[in-house]
Amino acid sequence: MVGIIMGSDSDLPVMAKAAEVLEALDVRCSTTIVSAHRTPRRMFEYAQNARKQGLKVIIAGAGGAAHLPGMVAALTDLPVIGVPVRSSNLQGLDSLLSIVQMPGGVPVATMAINGAKNAGLLAARMIAAWDEELARRLAGFQEAMEQEVGDKITSLESLGWQEYLRGMK
Amino acid sequence: MVGIIMGSDSDLPVMAKAAEVLEALDVRCSTTIVSAHRTPRRMFEYAQNARKQGLKVIIAGAGGAAHLPGMVAALTDLPVIGVPVRSSNLQGLDSLLSIVQMPGGVPVATMAINGAKNAGLLAARMIAAWDEELARRLAGFQEAMEQEVGDKITSLESLGWQEYLRGMK
Amino acid sequence: MVGIIMGSDSDLPVMAKAAEVLEALDVRCSTTIVSAHRTPRRMFEYAQNARKQGLKVIIAGAGGAAHLPGMVAALTDLPVIGVPVRSSNLQGLDSLLSIVQMPGGVPVATMAINGAKNAGLLAARMIAAWDEELARRLAGFQEAMEQEVGDKITSLESLGWQEYLRGMK
Amino acid sequence: MVGIIMGSDSDLPVMAKAAEVLEALDVRCSTTIVSAHRTPRRMFEYAQNARKQGLKVIIAGAGGAAHLPGMVAALTDLPVIGVPVRSSNLQGLDSLLSIVQMPGGVPVATMAINGAKNAGLLAARMIAAWDEELARRLAGFQEAMEQEVGDKITSLESLGWQEYLRGMK
Amino acid sequence: MVGIIMGSDSDLPVMAKAAEVLEALDVRCSTTIVSAHRTPRRMFEYAQNARKQGLKVIIAGAGGAAHLPGMVAALTDLPVIGVPVRSSNLQGLDSLLSIVQMPGGVPVATMAINGAKNAGLLAARMIAAWDEELARRLAGFQEAMEQEVGDKITSLESLGWQEYLRGMK
Amino acid sequence: MVGIIMGSDSDLPVMAKAAEVLEALDVRCSTTIVSAHRTPRRMFEYAQNARKQGLKVIIAGAGGAAHLPGMVAALTDLPVIGVPVRSSNLQGLDSLLSIVQMPGGVPVATMAINGAKNAGLLAARMIAAWDEELARRLAGFQEAMEQEVGDKITSLESLGWQEYLRGMK
Amino acid sequence: MVGIIMGSDSDLPVMAKAAEVLEALDVRCSTTIVSAHRTPRRMFEYAQNARKQGLKVIIAGAGGAAHLPGMVAALTDLPVIGVPVRSSNLQGLDSLLSIVQMPGGVPVATMAINGAKNAGLLAARMIAAWDEELARRLAGFQEAMEQEVGDKITSLESLGWQEYLRGMK
Amino acid sequence: MVGIIMGSDSDLPVMAKAAEVLEALDVRCSTTIVSAHRTPRRMFEYAQNARKQGLKVIIAGAGGAAHLPGMVAALTDLPVIGVPVRSSNLQGLDSLLSIVQMPGGVPVATMAINGAKNAGLLAARMIAAWDEELARRLAGFQEAMEQEVGDKITSLESLGWQEYLRGMK
Repeated sequence: MVGIIMGSDSDLPVMAKAAEVLEALDVRCSTTIVSAHRTPRRMFEYAQNARKQGLKVIIAGAGGAAHLPGMVAALTDLPVIGVPVRSSNLQGLDSLLSIVQMPGGVPVATMAINGAKNAGLLAARMIAAWDEELARRLAGFQEAMEQEVGDKITSLESLGWQEYLRGMK
Repeated sequence: MVGIIMGSDSDLPVMAKAAEVLEALDVRCSTTIVSAHRTPRRMFEYAQNARKQGLKVIIAGAGGAAHLPGMVAALTDLPVIGVPVRSSNLQGLDSLLSIVQMPGGVPVATMAINGAKNAGLLAARMIAAWDEELARRLAGFQEAMEQEVGDKITSLESLGWQEYLRGMK
Repeated sequence: MVGIIMGSDSDLPVMAKAAEVLEALDVRCSTTIVSAHRTPRRMFEYAQNARKQGLKVIIAGAGGAAHLPGMVAALTDLPVIGVPVRSSNLQGLDSLLSIVQMPGGVPVATMAINGAKNAGLLAARMIAAWDEELARRLAGFQEAMEQEVGDKITSLESLGWQEYLRGMK
Repeated sequence: MVGIIMGSDSDLPVMAKAAEVLEALDVRCSTTIVSAHRTPRRMFEYAQNARKQGLKVIIAGAGGAAHLPGMVAALTDLPVIGVPVRSSNLQGLDSLLSIVQMPGGVPVATMAINGAKNAGLLAARMIAAWDEELARRLAGFQEAMEQEVGDKITSLESLGWQEYLRGMK
Repeated sequence: MVGIIMGSDSDLPVMAKAAEVLEALDVRCSTTIVSAHRTPRRMFEYAQNARKQGLKVIIAGAGGAAHLPGMVAALTDLPVIGVPVRSSNLQGLDSLLSIVQMPGGVPVATMAINGAKNAGLLAARMIAAWDEELARRLAGFQEAMEQEVGDKITSLESLGWQEYLRGMK
Repeated sequence: MVGIIMGSDSDLPVMAKAAEVLEALDVRCSTTIVSAHRTPRRMFEYAQNARKQGLKVIIAGAGGAAHLPGMVAALTDLPVIGVPVRSSNLQGLDSLLSIVQMPGGVPVATMAINGAKNAGLLAARMIAAWDEELARRLAGFQEAMEQEVGDKITSLESLGWQEYLRGMK
Repeated sequence: MVGIIMGSDSDLPVMAKAAEVLEALDVRCSTTIVSAHRTPRRMFEYAQNARKQGLKVIIAGAGGAAHLPGMVAALTDLPVIGVPVRSSNLQGLDSLLSIVQMPGGVPVATMAINGAKNAGLLAARMIAAWDEELARRLAGFQEAMEQEVGDKITSLESLGWQEYLRGMK
Repeated sequence: MVGIIMGSDSDLPVMAKAAEVLEALDVRCSTTIVSAHRTPRRMFEYAQNARKQGLKVIIAGAGGAAHLPGMVAALTDLPVIGVPVRSSNLQGLDSLLSIVQMPGGVPVATMAINGAKNAGLLAARMIAAWDEELARRLAGFQEAMEQEVGDKITSLESLGWQEYLRGMK
């Protein structure tokens, strides 16, 4: 249902977060490597067949001069989510601008630098708009997140910040 | 079906592009002003009632320290699309970073600076993933766009670039 | 008297500096976690009740798309001090711009990236403008700071820079 | 009560916004030119006498390598609000960083680039924390601001965005 | 011999400089529109057939999230020269980073923002390395450029800078 | 045939990648140090004699205020490829802008920050435009690169991303 | 005594400010065009003969990939002052970094973007350190500058800011 | 003869390079701490007495919102050299802009980020313009630098880059 692709296996430690969150939410997804620059023909086929394969959303991560999300968006009319992977020299600013500054006509839903977890959550939100069950699981996820913060608040307020800080080290 | 909101009426000349493209694609949308900083209670209500109001996607535009898209995304589990509106001093870089760099847990689908047209198209793609008819209209839109480029190519190649350039002035 | 809040407990090692300096100056303060994105309702309540709780100033720290200081400033008319916490990818430039570039009408007193100590001192200065005793303690603090530099100067000038530098390693 | 200073009379069109909003809120203020680089001795005297002159807050605006707010903050223990004035070449990024990145020990409450209106409002908030009457006037100001947005919303929703947009031109 | 392509006809006023300088140097070139995002199939064909069509170099100009030069470079093994066209919001910094930060394996010879004239000259230098006659014409071009500066020097030194400056207005 | 120069031996770990790839493609190259700032006369001689020495392309790497590629390009009419070497303080942004923003008349083919491997490949592409055998070796190189990605794809798809990720650590 | 050079006559409107202030201070200076990229041999001769010609300081202005100040500094041991001239696309950030980020061994005294007036003043300060008369003229200049601010202060304080502001328009 | 000052003893590891090179060139210098923000009165006295103390040049290093060089330059008419010390969050970009972007009237000769060695060399060049002996020592220094590069060239060319690279590790 959700296709997760990345330009290189070196992006996997980042992009795995998208797969993780989708699996936790019980959304089917497939994960593979598709490189705009090293396997351009494969990219063409992947994007053009995506809808026929039953995909509803594509998540694409890439770094540096990151062309994968935008090119895939040009070749399909499914929604495409782009994850700028942090590059080694400009901290991902190049990845971010290469993905987000798309010209009018071809949108890419851009996430924060290394924001693959949010890419998974956004894909889930897109599907949940039509899927009440997933919407409930998402709501549960958001509550769990709020609860986790709540536990930390309780702990911080009862211990005091000095004690809590000591516990973090 | 699609809610379009913006922080100030000064954002309307930019954000109108989202409404235009959605209307051209025959997708119902409602457009209004919701300011995170000047009407925070209204923002809360808008976001919390969005799903109940039948919205499937929210498009939110804002400039400078642009908090509207992220706050709305924190208050609903619908997909939220953020449009960084160009600010007067830092060319929209502040708007872009304020919207895109969301923490894990709360995704905002960020567009290019002033990229409201693409926000409309992304919303349409999200819906079209479940709506064959809209998918066909979108495909038509994309063909028209390709055709328009095609016409320019024919014209440029038959006139030669010098002549074409003169005609542009 | 001074409320110190932060978006996540991961901000505590930075934000603790604000609490430390306020405690050293004998200014009462309370420290807790309030997340704009993960606990938006808590944030609303916190900000709206702040004046009634006897707070005179709020210090809010957050990183990345840092919406906490600006949203709190929109929900109270107490002075709000924002601390941009260094983010992992853009060195805190995103945090800084998200906090400082507020629209006209809703001010946030922005500190340097990770500048929580100065947030505490600014809060103390605000109170000391009406509190002669605190003003005296602040003056003492500033003298101590100057004295500390003075000691280093004496040491550097008597040892010579080569010797002093060796001692630093 | 509030001292407003700026590095050059060319900053006045920006800095006048601080004086305007303070006068609208009935807060006494005095406005003059104090240049860190061209009148350093005057700056020393101004800052060192500020408390004795009855000032409670100082607002200082400057552009480029903007040293005025930080130097004044080093010479007084009143709260100092810094306004980065947009410079001609780097859009105020230099002004912003020169003002906000203060070292630990000497805080400057930094506003947005050209954010002089917010400097006035922050000064008012600082005073209103101890002045119930001003707090009421500030609350009135915030309501008026919200009302102004409310009127625009009514107008936008009744006219429709197309009509409203036409009216803006 | 040299193919000049651009993402949109709005890039023509910039890219025409490449054609002009090549024609002045008597190097055959063809100029057309090829959009990575709006005509991706055309781009594939263009790049894959380039060598067979007798091209020796490709010059590709694009702005914003500029994917054309990198994608063409991925689809041919001819040398590809990329021209970052100045974008409306980030002054071409996005175009520059999108083009220059290519991953290892797929080089793009990147020019300055709007540096189309130099793209033409670089293409000529590449060919002139194997073409003595063109090398001579290039040398003539460089001499003419030096001569033009020489004339200005003579004029500036004989008139004096005040007079020369007056003549510039 | 290809001259590789760099401003300092500290650039060698980066620049060696250019030599490596050229040797792998069986293109003759010579590697040495030429500093614009520390050996300006040597730079003049190197650049002015380059064509006579039989060079067809020059690759020049430098960091910080990187003047070597541009100065060499001003002194020869061979194509010059510039490699911005990552600097210690601004992550190579200074190196990049110092190399790429050349004025009209003197082109430098700029690579990504630390992109020396691509510099070697671009030089090879320039030569291969006139050398069928090298073109074949280059095609082989590109196929090998595609094959390498293909192997990773097979492995990732058969192992699943979790297993693959574990294997990366 | 002071040599003022610039890369192109288009830099003259900026660089003339250096000549103006030197002439006002009665310091002899000569102004001409020397381009690192278009007249590299002339640059070599100029720099190598500078000391023999009786120059004590060189002021060099250039824009974009601005190599002139650094190359001249490499070819002489006179102090060299660099003026980054604002470029059309990156607001002079490229010019600034190309000039200021010199490697250890070859210093360039860098001014603000378009800061040619200060270049003249710095040259005058360098000479005045050995020339009591010039030191007196410089002191007079600084007093005049302070006086000019003083007159504005008197005017602003007597008219009030509203009246003064009206007079500026 | 040369005064070296810095805002904090944490700047000493950087600023020591200025003292080192001056001592190697046999130029007298004194090194101490003067903080614009923590010891503003000391800074005033230092700057105002500098000429009387026999100083010919002042070298001032500072980081972050670096006001020391500009304030000293406002208080003396000696030439002032500013060294932007790398800050922990923005890599020294804030230090650089705070020092270099001085307004017309008050020049600071700005060095590269952490460029203290060049600050020493520039001071030496300023003095050497009037001191033939120092000029000779400087020339010797520059030759030694060139010789050092020459030795590396010989070594690299005789060993080959592979061997040389291995020797570097």
